[in-house]
Amino acid sequence: MTAAPADYLHARWAALVRILEAEQLDGLLVTHPQNIAYLAGFFGSAGILIVAGTGLTLVSDGRYADALRRRADQLPILTSHVAPSAGSQEETIVDQVATLGPRRLGFEAGTMTVRQHQDLARRLAAVGWRGDLVAMDGAVEQLRLLKDAWEVETLREAGRRLSDVAKCIIPKALAGSEERELAALIEWELRRKGFEKPAFDTIVASGPNAAIPHHRAGDRRLADGDLVVMDFGGLFRGYAVDLTRTVILGSASDRQLACWHAVARAQRAAFLAVAVGIAAEDVDAAARQVLEQEGMGAAFGHGLGHGLGLDVHERPRLSRRREGVSQGPLLDGMVFTLEPGVYFPGWGGVRIEDDVLLTAAGPEWLTEPVDEVRAT
Amino acid sequence: MTAAPADYLHARWAALVRILEAEQLDGLLVTHPQNIAYLAGFFGSAGILIVAGTGLTLVSDGRYADALRRRADQLPILTSHVAPSAGSQEETIVDQVATLGPRRLGFEAGTMTVRQHQDLARRLAAVGWRGDLVAMDGAVEQLRLLKDAWEVETLREAGRRLSDVAKCIIPKALAGSEERELAALIEWELRRKGFEKPAFDTIVASGPNAAIPHHRAGDRRLADGDLVVMDFGGLFRGYAVDLTRTVILGSASDRQLACWHAVARAQRAAFLAVAVGIAAEDVDAAARQVLEQEGMGAAFGHGLGHGLGLDVHERPRLSRRREGVSQGPLLDGMVFTLEPGVYFPGWGGVRIEDDVLLTAAGPEWLTEPVDEVRAT
Repeated sequence: MTAAPADYLHARWAALVRILEAEQLDGLLVTHPQNIAYLAGFFGSAGILIVAGTGLTLVSDGRYADALRRRADQLPILTSHVAPSAGSQEETIVDQVATLGPRRLGFEAGTMTVRQHQDLARRLAAVGWRGDLVAMDGAVEQLRLLKDAWEVETLREAGRRLSDVAKCIIPKALAGSEERELAALIEWELRRKGFEKPAFDTIVASGPNAAIPHHRAGDRRLADGDLVVMDFGGLFRGYAVDLTRTVILGSASDRQLACWHAVARAQRAAFLAVAVGIAAEDVDAAARQVLEQEGMGAAFGHGLGHGLGLDVHERPRLSRRREGVSQGPLLDGMVFTLEPGVYFPGWGGVRIEDDVLLTAAGPEWLTEPVDEVRAT
Repeated sequence: MTAAPADYLHARWAALVRILEAEQLDGLLVTHPQNIAYLAGFFGSAGILIVAGTGLTLVSDGRYADALRRRADQLPILTSHVAPSAGSQEETIVDQVATLGPRRLGFEAGTMTVRQHQDLARRLAAVGWRGDLVAMDGAVEQLRLLKDAWEVETLREAGRRLSDVAKCIIPKALAGSEERELAALIEWELRRKGFEKPAFDTIVASGPNAAIPHHRAGDRRLADGDLVVMDFGGLFRGYAVDLTRTVILGSASDRQLACWHAVARAQRAAFLAVAVGIAAEDVDAAARQVLEQEGMGAAFGHGLGHGLGLDVHERPRLSRRREGVSQGPLLDGMVFTLEPGVYFPGWGGVRIEDDVLLTAAGPEWLTEPVDEVRAT
């Protein structure tokens, strides 16, 4: 996995230290895997990161001995430790905390389990540590919300590759094939285009299944007259991009075409509404208004979009305005999806999704939106 | 997803209630997704299950309204509730706990995060509930350790299908193709054979990469003279099976053949050692002894195997004997892998993995082991 260069990781660490100082913490125990990847460029399946003292201390087990050594070589602020066995990572962590000696040590309460917390508190007490464990969520997520230059380049490249997958795959949505076969083709194409793996379970929803937003891919065979919703994404250097195309098989009905074009116009309206400082819910409203004017407002039952990054669903959230809760303004450096959709139970549905980067210059498509419905 | 029939789910619930009674609990909040799937036959990505009163109470959000209704129709002991929104699941849980009124309510401390626990305790106090939340791990896992007849049939079918995937894929490991291309082919074949998805990130490790047990699949091209380790698995009706094949490309060297045959003999020795009542570490020892006799003991750096079921890694664990820690006896109804391997940094490695069911009649291969190394 290509990790961000050391100077980017150094800058992320410095920014995190400022956040911790503002919270009067002199350390943070990072357990959320994507946060560890963000700070240390380490993508192992097991690991804990301590942010304390003059840098980062990364602990994992023997399977990652080489990777840990390489990380420490490449990143001067990082020290790494191999726990003697997979089960002894906690002991190594406790030793390091005792050595580094933070007094108020934050931990990620949204990731750490009750069992891990009990175990950690017990072990720290046993070695005579007299600090406080302080529940702290969102410190790293706050940084991840605004992508740095390396992340922007990574997501641009990922978006280009995902658009290529879409172009290859649309002509392969053919009557007669099973939903799960088409999903397998999509995942094969993701691999071929250099993605590490699908970012989530690929969705191929055909005919009446297209009315079910969370349908996966089953044994239904695509048939003439179907709407087919294909929603897929890939991880590239650990970063997720996400795209949905809807095609019409055979000759399209007027209602199908009307739905497709209304959703495409809603997406375009949302893109035009995106700007630095605009509230996320106002972008949702711009898309929703188009569908309401077409009498399809009630059929758009989900939010407009979600942030992308090391997680496939992260902040910001773009959804309907709710009494008293603001989703906050969109900011320079955010990356998110725009994915309006309409769903009519028993009949079918349409969703169109592309990814957008917002900079001071305005919104930029990371994936290439389609102008025309494919109907053959 | 085909869930287990109602009578099986009923029996699982009854067995769990007996475990809870022995712990003087009159309820359990189940948050581990595989435990929810096991008890309720519900495979949604969000959901909480309460075991209290006279049955099961399942809460999820509106995306799963249909699935919840169907579950409740099929399973008389189950009541289901749709939370008004994805964020309001906790409120519905608290209402249900207040209604059902358990006094000592267990929760899964190994799954519930500190944040969830704080939130739950606060909400329960706010509605005037006066019970105790008791940390409780492993109650459902204890049941899942011994597969029932439905699970056995499911795993047999999954094993047959995975063997078919292996047979299709071995001839496709060809010099010139990239590791990640071969991984994509394997995943395509898994889908074609009816698996819902890969059970884990497919491993294709060629040449020197074959010496790295946790290598995934990268851009190295397979070459004549390579050992190629392919480790893959699939989920079938939610159940994981797992298999590894190692092939030799081009004409095999004596050392390659010696390694391959030693590992195959180690696996066979392990199979012959498997019986009800035998300690898991003794099965590991049977395989290890074969490799030690070949002077390859030090090259077998991991445990022999792991349990399979709704999780791809679950109990039992078959690994080296450790001072003072017994892994316990193997029991009728356990399903696990046998996967000895040898790894020589810079040179390559061999791993061979198949899945076994243990019954009173002895061990049974769920996947079909290979007799001969493929070397072309």
